[in-house]
Amino acid sequence: MSVELLLSGLTHVHTREEFTKKLALGRPLRVKLGFDPSAPDLHLGHALVLAKVRQFQEAGHLAVIIVGDYTARVGDPTGRSKTRPALEPEVIEQNAKTYTDQVFQIIDPKKTEIRHNGEWLAKLTCADLLRLNGQVNVARLLERDDFSKRHREGVPISLAEFQYPVLQGYDSVAVQSDIELGGNDQLFNNLVGRDLQRQAGQEPQVVLVTALLTGTDGKQKMSKSLGNHIGITEPPTEIFGKVMSIPDETCALWRDLLGSFLGLPKESPSHPMEAKKELAAAAVRRFHGESAATAARSDFEAKFSKKDLTTAEMESFRPSSATLSVAKLVQETKTIASNSEARRLITQGGVKLDGTKLADPQAEISLQTGQVLQVGKKTFFRIHL
Amino acid sequence: MSVELLLSGLTHVHTREEFTKKLALGRPLRVKLGFDPSAPDLHLGHALVLAKVRQFQEAGHLAVIIVGDYTARVGDPTGRSKTRPALEPEVIEQNAKTYTDQVFQIIDPKKTEIRHNGEWLAKLTCADLLRLNGQVNVARLLERDDFSKRHREGVPISLAEFQYPVLQGYDSVAVQSDIELGGNDQLFNNLVGRDLQRQAGQEPQVVLVTALLTGTDGKQKMSKSLGNHIGITEPPTEIFGKVMSIPDETCALWRDLLGSFLGLPKESPSHPMEAKKELAAAAVRRFHGESAATAARSDFEAKFSKKDLTTAEMESFRPSSATLSVAKLVQETKTIASNSEARRLITQGGVKLDGTKLADPQAEISLQTGQVLQVGKKTFFRIHL
Repeated sequence: MSVELLLSGLTHVHTREEFTKKLALGRPLRVKLGFDPSAPDLHLGHALVLAKVRQFQEAGHLAVIIVGDYTARVGDPTGRSKTRPALEPEVIEQNAKTYTDQVFQIIDPKKTEIRHNGEWLAKLTCADLLRLNGQVNVARLLERDDFSKRHREGVPISLAEFQYPVLQGYDSVAVQSDIELGGNDQLFNNLVGRDLQRQAGQEPQVVLVTALLTGTDGKQKMSKSLGNHIGITEPPTEIFGKVMSIPDETCALWRDLLGSFLGLPKESPSHPMEAKKELAAAAVRRFHGESAATAARSDFEAKFSKKDLTTAEMESFRPSSATLSVAKLVQETKTIASNSEARRLITQGGVKLDGTKLADPQAEISLQTGQVLQVGKKTFFRIHL
Repeated sequence: MSVELLLSGLTHVHTREEFTKKLALGRPLRVKLGFDPSAPDLHLGHALVLAKVRQFQEAGHLAVIIVGDYTARVGDPTGRSKTRPALEPEVIEQNAKTYTDQVFQIIDPKKTEIRHNGEWLAKLTCADLLRLNGQVNVARLLERDDFSKRHREGVPISLAEFQYPVLQGYDSVAVQSDIELGGNDQLFNNLVGRDLQRQAGQEPQVVLVTALLTGTDGKQKMSKSLGNHIGITEPPTEIFGKVMSIPDETCALWRDLLGSFLGLPKESPSHPMEAKKELAAAAVRRFHGESAATAARSDFEAKFSKKDLTTAEMESFRPSSATLSVAKLVQETKTIASNSEARRLITQGGVKLDGTKLADPQAEISLQTGQVLQVGKKTFFRIHL
């Protein structure tokens, strides 16, 4: 595999010269990737980095996955973050299993070494930490984007947070990594690893970072906590529908970043809707196989073509009564957050029964089993009395 | 002993209200004082803090001296400071012994507990440190005078340096200190101890700090590395002479700060020279006894009164030749750093032979054994051919 291919799609290579030298060693390189066991589910954003790991495996190198079990046991020592409680060992192991099950849908388990950082961090003494910390410059830590922003805005940063990049860097020393892969937001941390390796008499790892994938909102980076993610274990129709919901520009971006991982041809279909369908089908195919991709596409097309509504599979919905007002019907589907919003959608023609607009919120209607209720652009129910 | 007396001469009391409550507990309070075993020799600056410890002992409380052996074994982890090498355990113990021998000239050994912080710091795990560091705000550390100055000026601060105040604070948790005493420069560190004690469910220690004693130069704080200190084990004539060399304003300052420790009356003699002699004698008396004080005073007065030069004890000096230029003579005494400075001193009348000014640097003079050579205000030699 060519150097060019291995470095394709990366936003940072530190350094290219060292990378070429490492490859020339002619032995399998140790390609490190860290994992925080408090969030085990993978989404397409992770897939981007993992696809790169996979490329290295195909070129004969070894993936070294670090499970950050030690720090997960500590949790958030400031007590500020409720989303980072101290995890019990059993939960960490369960999460690590979930993670590896998902990771191995992308990378090759036979060329993977899984290590828990408790193996070496539990042995560190206070003196060891002082020596490691002696190599790290506070001003450089404060230059890291997130820290510098918080410091400027007077948002507290605890000293423990300064410790994590050092511990993560020490992981690189412990596993003697040749290369560390990560998203763009890990660039700083992974560079710290280089300093500590050098101090420990090792050749510093080459740091490679990928772009961060934008979420389905087309604005922020993909993240479970922002709800703009596509999990790789989500059902085919979910994945398909979520890809179809992204802005056109995001589609082009995703295609650039994920295209080769998803096996798409270089040329994108010229029609935006068709380009999205191709991307959506490829994403489903990658995680659920060819027939699921075909089914998800037909299903989606059926839902959005009025003609085929009678045969498409969809969720059934049982109203509290066969006769009720349109406003009440929409409210019972629990798809719209507030009553005023529901009323607006109805009067604007966004609610349909078998393709016919129900534009008066107060109108009483009679329902029959088998009818198709559409609420907004994407949500369909089959009435079941 | 009254609250007022115990709080006299302090620059900071944090807080007075808590201090009064602690005293009201009616039990001996644990008064913590830290000691860095890389610098075992005490000078008058330390005496200021120790005199305060002594006062607490006299009021029935217990001194808890912390020997920072653990961090001394690590040394300076940045490797930048050659003055802070990693010390061997034997050196640390030797230094601790030197220190306690000197400390017990001021405080009462029977009311003192000596603890080594290795006792608890060696047991700290990485997870323990993360939890401690989680309580400490980086922005507050950066507010500390020395750190803020260095950060502003771009002088590197290592992360290990941020760790020390935390470890020092943890010492307070370990020994359950009620009060921590220190110089002004320790205020920040000692306040960190309060936070960590509170977190550990202890009543926070009251923090008391004294002023820092100005050195003999009258400008910077007294410090061995600046060479402006008076060691408490220096010979009587050294102590006496050094006190006599301080500026008059410094004499007034020292009298304010050290007067009660040295047993001086409130009213200072009105003549500056007499005030200094009283202070100098009191300092010698405190560390070497009454007769040494009397002898040092007589010796000093003899040196500085021309009449008695013939009998005073003084260092002998053997010039390279019985006949030489005044400039060469002064140069051979090695008391003046540069030749230009020596020439200036000579032309200004600062060099005398048996009380007669030798004002021409180039003049050749003939010397005889027994003559008294004076170089500057304080340095006397008896010529010995």
